[in-house]
Amino acid sequence: MTRPSEDDLIARFFAPLATTAGADGLTDDAAVVPEGEGDLVVTMDMAIAGVHFFPDDPPGLIAAKALRVNLSDLAAKGAVPTGFLLGLGLPPDWTTDFLGAFAEGLATDIGGYGCPLLGGDTVKVPGPLTLSVTAFGRAARTVRRRGARPGDVLCVTGTIGDGALGLVARRAEREPAASPDWLRLLAPDERAHLVDRYLSPRPRVALAAAVARHASAAMDVSDGLVGDLAKMMTASGTGARLDAAAVPLSSAAARALAIDPALRERVLTGGDDYEVLLACPPERLDELREDAAAADVPLVVMGKVTEGTDVTWMADGRVLSFASSRFEHF
Amino acid sequence: MTRPSEDDLIARFFAPLATTAGADGLTDDAAVVPEGEGDLVVTMDMAIAGVHFFPDDPPGLIAAKALRVNLSDLAAKGAVPTGFLLGLGLPPDWTTDFLGAFAEGLATDIGGYGCPLLGGDTVKVPGPLTLSVTAFGRAARTVRRRGARPGDVLCVTGTIGDGALGLVARRAEREPAASPDWLRLLAPDERAHLVDRYLSPRPRVALAAAVARHASAAMDVSDGLVGDLAKMMTASGTGARLDAAAVPLSSAAARALAIDPALRERVLTGGDDYEVLLACPPERLDELREDAAAADVPLVVMGKVTEGTDVTWMADGRVLSFASSRFEHF
Repeated sequence: MTRPSEDDLIARFFAPLATTAGADGLTDDAAVVPEGEGDLVVTMDMAIAGVHFFPDDPPGLIAAKALRVNLSDLAAKGAVPTGFLLGLGLPPDWTTDFLGAFAEGLATDIGGYGCPLLGGDTVKVPGPLTLSVTAFGRAARTVRRRGARPGDVLCVTGTIGDGALGLVARRAEREPAASPDWLRLLAPDERAHLVDRYLSPRPRVALAAAVARHASAAMDVSDGLVGDLAKMMTASGTGARLDAAAVPLSSAAARALAIDPALRERVLTGGDDYEVLLACPPERLDELREDAAAADVPLVVMGKVTEGTDVTWMADGRVLSFASSRFEHF
Repeated sequence: MTRPSEDDLIARFFAPLATTAGADGLTDDAAVVPEGEGDLVVTMDMAIAGVHFFPDDPPGLIAAKALRVNLSDLAAKGAVPTGFLLGLGLPPDWTTDFLGAFAEGLATDIGGYGCPLLGGDTVKVPGPLTLSVTAFGRAARTVRRRGARPGDVLCVTGTIGDGALGLVARRAEREPAASPDWLRLLAPDERAHLVDRYLSPRPRVALAAAVARHASAAMDVSDGLVGDLAKMMTASGTGARLDAAAVPLSSAAARALAIDPALRERVLTGGDDYEVLLACPPERLDELREDAAAADVPLVVMGKVTEGTDVTWMADGRVLSFASSRFEHF
């Protein structure tokens, strides 16, 4: 079977995704980033088969997740996406079917998030499928991790823990013998919800403008809420006091915790949430809530920023401690 | 032996390279691209051990080359570099010594090219060392491949073929039995010149402003002069007529060709030149030459753009044909 050349492959699968003038139809070695108002924010995340996703995950979802984790970073900085570059390292066994499904997954998200393909690079890799996405966005104000101040309230979007539990559920789909008891006791639609949340993060792009307007500090929750919050407090030179009971859970995660209370640590410290963690001056909280509601993004208060450097998680009037504070892909 | 965490590794090796405000000391998930005049040009190139470089190449040169091939793309578009993102996929056997030397190589180029590290991502890879560089530059005018017009003169910078011959010489260093006759007949300093040109491309950053001022079309020569020129003519909808004898050679490459005339094809179609190929309206040629001389970049005329789509290479009054018109890393 003859394989298409790199140029043929780009023309067939990726040029149709490059709908912006600066991409020049992917016929050149470089792109021109579109002009715009505000800061140009840029982020890069790599994703490697066997490390960040399973090689047999659906190709369209692998592609979409590689893009979405970058859009999540942008949203948490207050930036609305404007385009991306794709680095694609193909293993020896790639197929045109795989690439077709991969490009289709990207096409859906490019439309859905208004984030065209600007360019990239395609290479062969004597190893696992390797993705490198560089995404651009514009922020009226770039919100950093380091801006939290004592007295700020700490908020988080959506629900926490679904991704980490979904990873367990996705593993169990591949190796049923590895299925833990709590997972077997969930209803099929609860398991499906968790797997979906693991495979398909929903970056909070709709909240980006509100983050830029109101947040004193923000970051996306990708390596576990406890560890990411600790990083934000370290960067800000502050402490925090949090109520674990206030951490928002999906009904599937709540059911899993009811079955096995020991899962609380995995929920709070696991990765793959792709929600926004933010600190907000108390006098701006009402407006933040209004903007979040208008953007249809659930948002709750979990605690507040304190003087000092101690980060304390409370549950049922007691201080929680964690064996491992963060999930490291690295 | 305990390994540093991703955060420790970034703080130790890479934060010192992030000397621009927008990088925020690599303490955040995203960077702010510095403001500037002109088009913001962006390019991405991946480099994989065993495909684009030898795993035992000096780490500082691996790092510098991964950056420089991107700066070469920018220069050929008329863009002066302003910063870059580094995606670093580390294989299981990485060492802190390797990373120290790698970061040192980057530091030298960051200073030399005025191109600070803005951000990136570090992951582990169950495979070869994987690099992904996204580089930014500013161009007063972005020069595309597709702007050549019949009557334009075709110019190239520096010398052609050293990289392709240097790859052979580098291979022979690793496997002396694989050394071809012509290589053994070269003087040691000639071999060293070729290996150096393969390992350490010299992107023509100094010519970027002149490219933006004068070129109707341009691209960097990275996949072989014959193939890259054919791409530029295809993109422009033009043909070309070229004199192979006008292609500039280093004294080492000229000696190799004198020993083995069959090397001409490798010189003209091999990769890794990282020179600038450009088309220039004849009335601008004098100014282009002056600007190139002022920038200390050698530049010669090899031929001209023609009507039609035929690309003809002449040598000694005869038409040359090539078994393979381009080198594909892919």
